[in-house]
Amino acid sequence: MNRYEEIELQQDLEQVEKYLSGYLRDPGYGSAAGQILRDMEMSRGKRLRPRLLLMASRYGSEFQGSRSRLCRLGALVELVHMASLIHDDIVDDAPLRRGMPTTQSKYGKDMAVYAGDLILSRIVQSLFRDGFMRVGAYFGDTVEAMCLGELGQMEYRGREDITVDQYMSNIYGKTAALCRLACVAGAVESGCSEEVTSQLEQLGLNFGYMFQIRDDLLDFISTSAEEGKPTQVDFREGIYTLPVIYAMQDGQYRPRIIRLMQLAKKGGFGAAEEEELKALVVDSGGLAHASTDMKIYAQKAMRAVENLPDHGVSTVFRELLHKNM
Amino acid sequence: MNRYEEIELQQDLEQVEKYLSGYLRDPGYGSAAGQILRDMEMSRGKRLRPRLLLMASRYGSEFQGSRSRLCRLGALVELVHMASLIHDDIVDDAPLRRGMPTTQSKYGKDMAVYAGDLILSRIVQSLFRDGFMRVGAYFGDTVEAMCLGELGQMEYRGREDITVDQYMSNIYGKTAALCRLACVAGAVESGCSEEVTSQLEQLGLNFGYMFQIRDDLLDFISTSAEEGKPTQVDFREGIYTLPVIYAMQDGQYRPRIIRLMQLAKKGGFGAAEEEELKALVVDSGGLAHASTDMKIYAQKAMRAVENLPDHGVSTVFRELLHKNM
Repeated sequence: MNRYEEIELQQDLEQVEKYLSGYLRDPGYGSAAGQILRDMEMSRGKRLRPRLLLMASRYGSEFQGSRSRLCRLGALVELVHMASLIHDDIVDDAPLRRGMPTTQSKYGKDMAVYAGDLILSRIVQSLFRDGFMRVGAYFGDTVEAMCLGELGQMEYRGREDITVDQYMSNIYGKTAALCRLACVAGAVESGCSEEVTSQLEQLGLNFGYMFQIRDDLLDFISTSAEEGKPTQVDFREGIYTLPVIYAMQDGQYRPRIIRLMQLAKKGGFGAAEEEELKALVVDSGGLAHASTDMKIYAQKAMRAVENLPDHGVSTVFRELLHKNM
Repeated sequence: MNRYEEIELQQDLEQVEKYLSGYLRDPGYGSAAGQILRDMEMSRGKRLRPRLLLMASRYGSEFQGSRSRLCRLGALVELVHMASLIHDDIVDDAPLRRGMPTTQSKYGKDMAVYAGDLILSRIVQSLFRDGFMRVGAYFGDTVEAMCLGELGQMEYRGREDITVDQYMSNIYGKTAALCRLACVAGAVESGCSEEVTSQLEQLGLNFGYMFQIRDDLLDFISTSAEEGKPTQVDFREGIYTLPVIYAMQDGQYRPRIIRLMQLAKKGGFGAAEEEELKALVVDSGGLAHASTDMKIYAQKAMRAVENLPDHGVSTVFRELLHKNM
């Protein structure tokens, strides 16, 4: 990407922030509702999903003429992400997110339910009023997929019989579906051909899988101090991720992992058990296996990039993917 | 309404049920999610909102040609109601609804969050796929109003300083907004003129206010046995409705009501206190004042009916309203 293209992308990301502020405006009724939305506006994430959307849009011939609409759509995919975080934090009983108190811990679960719904309602209003007719239904599909992913994760919580397929289904909803939507929305709104849209869809989908598996791997590689958050929260809460699922496939390690699962359920999973689990996941080859899978998804995403017409933004995608291959 | 019109309305309501079944179809992934949707399908409500929508549509010149679309829209407004009930039950910790266990009590609050979101996502999908472009944004507005109503209600929970204005704001979101949407959607989709649509909007809005005040009045008039559910649940939970708010305006009764509020907060609100509260609300004139308000909203709704072109369905509206005037 040349310097000019970089500046344009940066400008667009700033525009996304402006639209986000608009969407998160105070309803001017009930101070708590406005406060929740202000908090959401303050909690700056990486804006990964708007970034994917804007990058995907660079392949479209109508990209220049659609820039302001694309920024608006970028804000909308970020809002879907925000609403899902608020609802997920209710379920996870999470006290903190990005170092800030979560909506549910600050205002209670009850407020959090409606704060998430309020954001969803703002998305629907904009999809219709701004005429995003071609991607509107796709937003609905994505929210459904996200719900099913979370419901699936809950259903398999604490269950030793979770399979790799079930894990992949769950992370489709948790992460990949929205990355896919971001890329498709960017493609459709910028006038990409069907073929290019389909490649961008594959790029978003496989990037999403890679991204989530990477996150789950990091939990076993880094220490709590490095991550700035406690590690193995998932395992403690009965959410078994890919490294654990692969480690369980080895009959030699399985009983020892099950013992740790049972300890965790009784609240007896401390620092020693954490170290033991990490060692089991490494020694069994579970971590390596999951890492191989991550690379496979990175390669699939890379293949989509290579199938796309050449563009400056392809370099940025390649850099993003290379780190994980 | 003549016999033929009645049969048509009944047929349409049956069609609404068929569409509801479709919208609540099992996502075919994760048995709990499918089970929650099946439960929703089983819990038969009065279908008040689809009924309002279908009745409003009778004033439109394109009503016959739009019948199947109107039934679909009727199902969609009922789905908004269902999703809101699921999310409200989380907040209210309600164990039962219409004599059946609530989603949150049967499957846990966590499942209930996503079950509600899943229904919302199905609504968005249909609004786009079935091309309800003229009313789509209105659905978004209504969900926002419903969230603000619930957030407002929570904000004023347990507060003695709640005003009549605040109560009216809260019940707008709780009930009136969706009744308004039902009437507007029926009007717009059946090709009503702007003038007729505006009258139907007033009809829906004021009907909604009347309906909610009536519900809140009944809580002080009927006994637990008559209602088939415990009475004064709202007061126990710190939700002060119109009869109580009016009773508090009398300085002679105010301290005694505040004493009961404080008792309720400490969990000391039993059968004796319930009787005392009822007596205070009656003796202070709070109940009568609230009843007058209800009649005023019924009259406003009736005025809208009288401003509409004459139609068989007007008789049904009149009967509905007369009971409360």
